[in-house]
Amino acid sequence: MAGGLDEFARIDRFFKPLSRGFTGALGLEDDAGLIAAPAGEALAVTTDAMVEGVHYPAGEDPARLARKLLRVNLSDLAAMGARPLAYTLTTALPAGVTEDWLAAFAAGLEEDQGRYGIHLLGGDSVSTPGPAMLSVTAFGSVREARALRRAGALVGDDVFVSGSVGDAALGLLAVRGELDGLAAPARAALAGRYRLPEPRGALGPRLIGLAHAAVDLSDGLVGDLGHICAASGVAARIEAARVPLSDAGRAAVAADPALLPVALAGGDDYELAFTAPPSAADALGALAADLDLPLTRIGTIGAGGGVTVVDSDGQTLTLPVGWRHF
Amino acid sequence: MAGGLDEFARIDRFFKPLSRGFTGALGLEDDAGLIAAPAGEALAVTTDAMVEGVHYPAGEDPARLARKLLRVNLSDLAAMGARPLAYTLTTALPAGVTEDWLAAFAAGLEEDQGRYGIHLLGGDSVSTPGPAMLSVTAFGSVREARALRRAGALVGDDVFVSGSVGDAALGLLAVRGELDGLAAPARAALAGRYRLPEPRGALGPRLIGLAHAAVDLSDGLVGDLGHICAASGVAARIEAARVPLSDAGRAAVAADPALLPVALAGGDDYELAFTAPPSAADALGALAADLDLPLTRIGTIGAGGGVTVVDSDGQTLTLPVGWRHF
Repeated sequence: MAGGLDEFARIDRFFKPLSRGFTGALGLEDDAGLIAAPAGEALAVTTDAMVEGVHYPAGEDPARLARKLLRVNLSDLAAMGARPLAYTLTTALPAGVTEDWLAAFAAGLEEDQGRYGIHLLGGDSVSTPGPAMLSVTAFGSVREARALRRAGALVGDDVFVSGSVGDAALGLLAVRGELDGLAAPARAALAGRYRLPEPRGALGPRLIGLAHAAVDLSDGLVGDLGHICAASGVAARIEAARVPLSDAGRAAVAADPALLPVALAGGDDYELAFTAPPSAADALGALAADLDLPLTRIGTIGAGGGVTVVDSDGQTLTLPVGWRHF
Repeated sequence: MAGGLDEFARIDRFFKPLSRGFTGALGLEDDAGLIAAPAGEALAVTTDAMVEGVHYPAGEDPARLARKLLRVNLSDLAAMGARPLAYTLTTALPAGVTEDWLAAFAAGLEEDQGRYGIHLLGGDSVSTPGPAMLSVTAFGSVREARALRRAGALVGDDVFVSGSVGDAALGLLAVRGELDGLAAPARAALAGRYRLPEPRGALGPRLIGLAHAAVDLSDGLVGDLGHICAASGVAARIEAARVPLSDAGRAAVAADPALLPVALAGGDDYELAFTAPPSAADALGALAADLDLPLTRIGTIGAGGGVTVVDSDGQTLTLPVGWRHF
């Protein structure tokens, strides 16, 4: 009973307004919400949970936390080529959570609902004696047979990544005060990408018909490409020098070359990595221009298994494993 | 990392087998699962979460816990008239959870998957320093315009309830050792209904076309009928003497009449309460016979608001409020 409100009052005040405009939410007044995909399409369903003290630090700004929670789920939908429709929210909150916290959390959800065109469909609100636990299940629509998958990469494919890689891992260092040698604007840019990712929702659906396999970067470039390789039964060879860094990322690595492996292996970037046949190169170039989003070829798919990252001399780089979210 | 297994190993060993037979789960290997309702139907989506120490006691049998978690969600689908298809599972588990615990938890899910014809579609598996938190989002199919709702009760409707009421509340007392004067078989029957409810999945879809409004009994007969009254803008008058008790429930109340209000107000029965016009009486009688499940008329819907429970003299009973799950 946060701030003296019971579950029903909390839902009435903070969450029902987030369901307005989505008739299937039934005003959050029924035992279930209703959602239908457009004719001929299936629903893509993904779930991501965040625990205070594990996935985000205690004291994190509640609006930003809410937006990140939504965005990591939207990133999964993008990786499947699905267009977002709605989401459910489960909160397990300790008694000390205030109405101000809830109001800010709901305001963050509302802001990103508008940005990404989704609505709250339902959920559950329970109390816990432990740390806060927040879970979103997001729903998108995609033609089932056309959904982007991790399986499907073929020998001879090129490997691409959207945007830039490593900012979130470097941003986590910046948040921790471990990049104090870097100029303040670069530190702020990196920290911002760690704290609030930008899901590639405009890109994912348009990769259908171009990409053979796709994944979003949550565990890190090497880890997530490893999922594609395992599911597809292929190997990926990545040229470190081709991996796109942001201006801030390049500045950080220039100041300390030991940060390059951190950037290459770190997670939480929420870019899309995908494989596509060489014949798709022109279409991908046009798509990148249309979206104003770099799509960079960083390597190739071959026979075998696993992900190898090589430097400009062709030597294999050994990268740290086991991305920690904070 | 329960029992030394990381998230991926845990999913591989315990959860992937639960997705077999549901192609849209994609073997739990993609960023999202895919689910489609039959043509012309929508998906009903419901979420229920359980926190150790709040919704169930520490040390609860993991298989039974898993089955209860599924069943409370299936009960919500039944209340909407939806037929179950699949579910997602989010677990936040402390480090001390063993592989044996996970194996038993998964075995419980598997058993009830078979019983109710559902499969695991996806989920998330995270660690927490706090108490275990388990959340299921269940998916069913129903024609959107025909789904049972809480709104829709009309003045002149009769109020019905399936099965028997109060067993779970009395069962909680039995579990706590507060019914030791009762015969052991009756205590066991009550405790069993508290620990493992039976969702009315066969009933819900067949109430479509007969019931004007429906709800499942999780908060208690009075509390949940209150949701129907609020959503429908009507009042319910319940005759306490008509509320069906089980044999064990009757024995408990006969031994201690002070337990009647506990039975009437307690939650967690997961029966369905619904309203229907008097013209549906014959069809409901035939349905009860066909399902071998009592459907008992316990009162009427009138103008006004709120739920009134009256005794055999027409005097209003005052019932305890605020059902606690354990």
